[in-house]
This record gives sequence, C-alpha cells and structure tokens, in this order.
Amino acid sequence: LLKFSLIPRGDKFFDLFEASAENILKAAEGLKDLTNTWDNVEERITIIKEFEHEGDIITHQIMERLHRTFITPFDREDIVLLAQGLDDVTDFIEEAADAMVTYKVKRPDWAAIALSDVILRGAREIQRGLPHLRKRSDFKHILEHCVEINRLENEADHVLRTAMGALFTDTTDVAEIIKWRDIYAHMESATDSCEDVADVLEGVALKHA
Amino acid sequence: LLKFSLIPRGDKFFDLFEASAENILKAAEGLKDLTNTWDNVEERITIIKEFEHEGDIITHQIMERLHRTFITPFDREDIVLLAQGLDDVTDFIEEAADAMVTYKVKRPDWAAIALSDVILRGAREIQRGLPHLRKRSDFKHILEHCVEINRLENEADHVLRTAMGALFTDTTDVAEIIKWRDIYAHMESATDSCEDVADVLEGVALKHA
Amino acid sequence: LLKFSLIPRGDKFFDLFEASAENILKAAEGLKDLTNTWDNVEERITIIKEFEHEGDIITHQIMERLHRTFITPFDREDIVLLAQGLDDVTDFIEEAADAMVTYKVKRPDWAAIALSDVILRGAREIQRGLPHLRKRSDFKHILEHCVEINRLENEADHVLRTAMGALFTDTTDVAEIIKWRDIYAHMESATDSCEDVADVLEGVALKHA
Repeated sequence: LLKFSLIPRGDKFFDLFEASAENILKAAEGLKDLTNTWDNVEERITIIKEFEHEGDIITHQIMERLHRTFITPFDREDIVLLAQGLDDVTDFIEEAADAMVTYKVKRPDWAAIALSDVILRGAREIQRGLPHLRKRSDFKHILEHCVEINRLENEADHVLRTAMGALFTDTTDVAEIIKWRDIYAHMESATDSCEDVADVLEGVALKHA
Repeated sequence: LLKFSLIPRGDKFFDLFEASAENILKAAEGLKDLTNTWDNVEERITIIKEFEHEGDIITHQIMERLHRTFITPFDREDIVLLAQGLDDVTDFIEEAADAMVTYKVKRPDWAAIALSDVILRGAREIQRGLPHLRKRSDFKHILEHCVEINRLENEADHVLRTAMGALFTDTTDVAEIIKWRDIYAHMESATDSCEDVADVLEGVALKHA
Repeated sequence: LLKFSLIPRGDKFFDLFEASAENILKAAEGLKDLTNTWDNVEERITIIKEFEHEGDIITHQIMERLHRTFITPFDREDIVLLAQGLDDVTDFIEEAADAMVTYKVKRPDWAAIALSDVILRGAREIQRGLPHLRKRSDFKHILEHCVEINRLENEADHVLRTAMGALFTDTTDVAEIIKWRDIYAHMESATDSCEDVADVLEGVALKHA
C-alpha cells in the first residue's frame, strides 16, 4: 500500500527546531563549563565550535525545507525568524568562546561566569518551551518560558553594565578592558538572541491562540 | 443601546503610536537637559529610565493589540517595524544616559551635547509627523518630516566622525576614548532608529498615497 | 501609435539592481587600491564617497519604483532586502575608508589589505551573479555565486580573528588597537552584507526554481 501526501507534514519542522534547541543547550553547557573550570581550554572550545557548525547545518536544513514546502505549520516569516534566532544563539556562544583564545585572556572573571550562567538558563527555557509549539492547547506554556527568557535578558543586561563599570574602575590595563568588553558583548548578544527567539514564539502563540 | 463592532477600530493603534512618540520626546528632552546642565545627574537619569520603561509598556500594548486584531489600519509588518523603531529610540537614549553613570564620566563634551540636540530634533520631527498617519490627505506632510529626519541622521553621523577624530587627537587617556566612543555610539544608534521610523512612515505614506 | 502598459515591466528593477552591483564593484576596487597603494589617500577616499552617494541614489530609485509598482518580478520583501543589502555593502566600504582618515592611521597592515581583497572578490561574485536573476533557467548559476560569497565571508571572519589576536600581541599602542579594530569591523560588516545579498538571491532562486 502506497500512501501519498500532497501536503508535506509539518512535523519535520518541529523536529528540526527542537534539534536546534538541543544543540544550543549543549553549546551553552560547554560555555558554562569553559568559564567555570578554565581547564582543557582548547579542547572545550573545539567542542563548542562543533556545536556551532551543527547549528549551521540544522538552520540550512530548515531553510531548504521551507523553500520546497507550500503549506507550513505557521507563517513562513516566523519560521525564518525562528531559525535565524536559534542559529544566532549558538553563533554568539562560539564567538564569545573563540574571543577568549584569540585574545589570550587569563582566567574568566565573575561577570563572564555570571553571563555564561544566564545564557545556559536561557537555552534551557528555549529547549523546554519549544516543544509546546506542536500542540495548540499547549501554547499557554510557551508564554511562561518567554516571560522567563525576557527576565534573563534583563539580568544579563544588568550584569553587563555592572561588569563594565567595574572593569574601568578595577583594571588599569586598557587592552584587558577592550578584550573583556568584546567577550561580554558577544555573551550579551547571545541573550539578546534568546529574546529574539522568545519574541517569535510569543508571536506565534498569540496569533494562533 | 448596545453597539457591536466586528471590525476593531484602528484609532487605538494611532493613539498608542502617538503616545510612544510623546514618550520619546520626553526622553530626548531629558537627555538634552542631562548633557547640557550636568547637574542632578542621578535624578535626571532615573527619569530617563522611567521613560524607557514607559516605552516598553506602550510597545507591548501595540504588539498585544496587533495579535488580536484582524483588520489593521496599515500592513501588519509596518506596525511591527514602527513599534520596534519607536521603542529603539528610547532604548538607545537610556543606554547613552546609563553609560555616562556606569562609566563615571566627567562633564559631557561638545559632541555629546551636539548629539543630544540632534536626537531631540529628530524626536520632535517624529512627534509632529506621526499624527498625519491618521488621515490619508495628510500623508504628504509625513514626507516632509521624513526628509528632515534623514538630514538629521547625516548630521549625527558627521558629528560622530568629527568627535571620534578629535578624541584620538586630543585625549591621551585611552580609557576615556573607549568610554566616550560607546556613549556616542548609543547616541548615534538613537538617530539611526529615528531614521528607521522615518523609513516605515515614508513607506506607509507612499504605499497608500 | 500609443502603447499603454498597465503592468509595469519588471526589467527596470533588474537594471537598477545591476547598476547597484556595478557601483559596489567600483567602490570595492577603490578600497582595494587605497589599502594597496596608500597614495593619494584623500583623493581615493573622495571617490569612494561618491560611489557611496551613488549607491544611495540607486537604492532610493528602487524603493520609489517599488512603492508605485503593483506587480513586481519577485516578492516585495525580497526586493527591499536586496536593495538594502546592496546599499549596506557600499556603506560599510565607505565607513572603513572614512575611518582611516578620521583616525589618521598609518599605512594599512596585511589584514586591512587582505580584507579589502575579500570584499572585492565578494563584490565581483555579486556583480556576476545578479544578472542571472533575469532568467529563471539561469537561476542555478546564482547558487554557485552564493556558495562562493558564503565561503568568502568565512575567510573574512578568519582573517579578522587572526588580525585581532595579532593586534593585541604585536601592538603596545592601545589607541592603535582601537582604531584598527573599528576599521576591520567595518570591513567585516561589508562581507556580512555581501552574505545578506547572497541569502536573498538564494531565497529568490529556490522559491522560483
């Protein structure tokens, strides 16, 4: 018995989005371990780079699928924004980690550790919230995760501002200030991208509620 | 007598956009006063932060209304872009003000004062141009304000470039260069966001002319 | 004999996009010559600024035409994104060149020369790929150019990271580090914008394949 399907099933999109969220979570765990332990630095960064590459592959698969799918589970532009937002989170995690080696920084300070922790918690909210996209009756749960992601972005913003103030007060080596400012900025961009993801999820949930 | 309305009236969107524009104007006046007087710094920055928070609330109201409105006064994506553009202006004003305390800078220099003035003039153009969205026959007036906002963005760009050149020539304290470069950048982003707002307004006006 | 056309012909859009791509190529050649020779600096930068201005005019023409055209050769949002992406490439080329004078830098180093070269090669791919938009049977060629533009963006990213690491290792003058970091960043943004252009082209090609 052959079964034809003129309407491509949307499930594959959800599979890919969830794979991307799992991947973000692993990259965020890698960054947290890196800043916490600061041992096996090269090896830990190589692993983060692999997650970033894996994220690229998943994003590419989503975009390819989108281009050859006529009926999508939700608006095409939201699929694009969601895919890009998820991809951006891993990109910024990798950029933060990479800058630590490129700049040959010494042990990460409290702010880098705090920001890694906020990123990890944001990644976890995304990974937990995303599966609720599959079922309209679960949409209300999405909003709870989005509220928490927004709160985390504010927390990251606060840590960043405090850290920048402290850098200028405590550090006399201006090169060191420039280095950490860049690394913090990448980390804060990761939490911004978590918020972008939350904005798309919230929009989809409200539009189809 | 009960009156039902199946088609939600679009007026509320205009009310919210105009409230956002009024709010931007107040934030911009706060920034101008802050850089001009440099007295009661803490208090003035607290007030700017309140406008930023008020802007967030208005933006949220616009997005919520959009998600439960089927027929909108103009394209949905333009409503989103306009709401975000207006929100960004207040955000960057607050970031500039906040960086001045976080970085513990001394009295603002001529460039910070000049940039605050350009932002204030841009905010005024937005606040004056926006009400013309309500009436198609007034759309031509929108374009006049947009031209002026674009001119102001070029002016800000010119001030920024001159100021950056002067910083490197006049300042030997590199930490001070980094601090002001950040503050100027936030200010210029505010004028960029004014231009984003003008671009949306211009697009809406031309599409429906 | 009068001929009326209710459906505006789309050819003019292609003419304008190709004019913008030619303009980018000239600006990129100007930047390459500037960093390579470092002679007649003022004059070379004036010419780059003229290309930037020319790019603004073309972008404006595309947007104006879009607003008064009902049937477009491809999706309106892709036309906007393509026009903006092309405009951004020239803007960032001009910003990089301008920063070299504003900051009064000495002779460009290997990284600035390498990045100018990557930008020039990206501009060439855009200028060669774009004409294939005119004919659906040529769409497959677009993808080849897009692959190369993506590869070039990775190359630029690699040069930038190496250069930043080298700056901090080799340079003791922190002001010099800040200056070059800014210039490199503008250059890398130019290659990012080339990638944005490639993303739109790829999307259009896949959607209509």
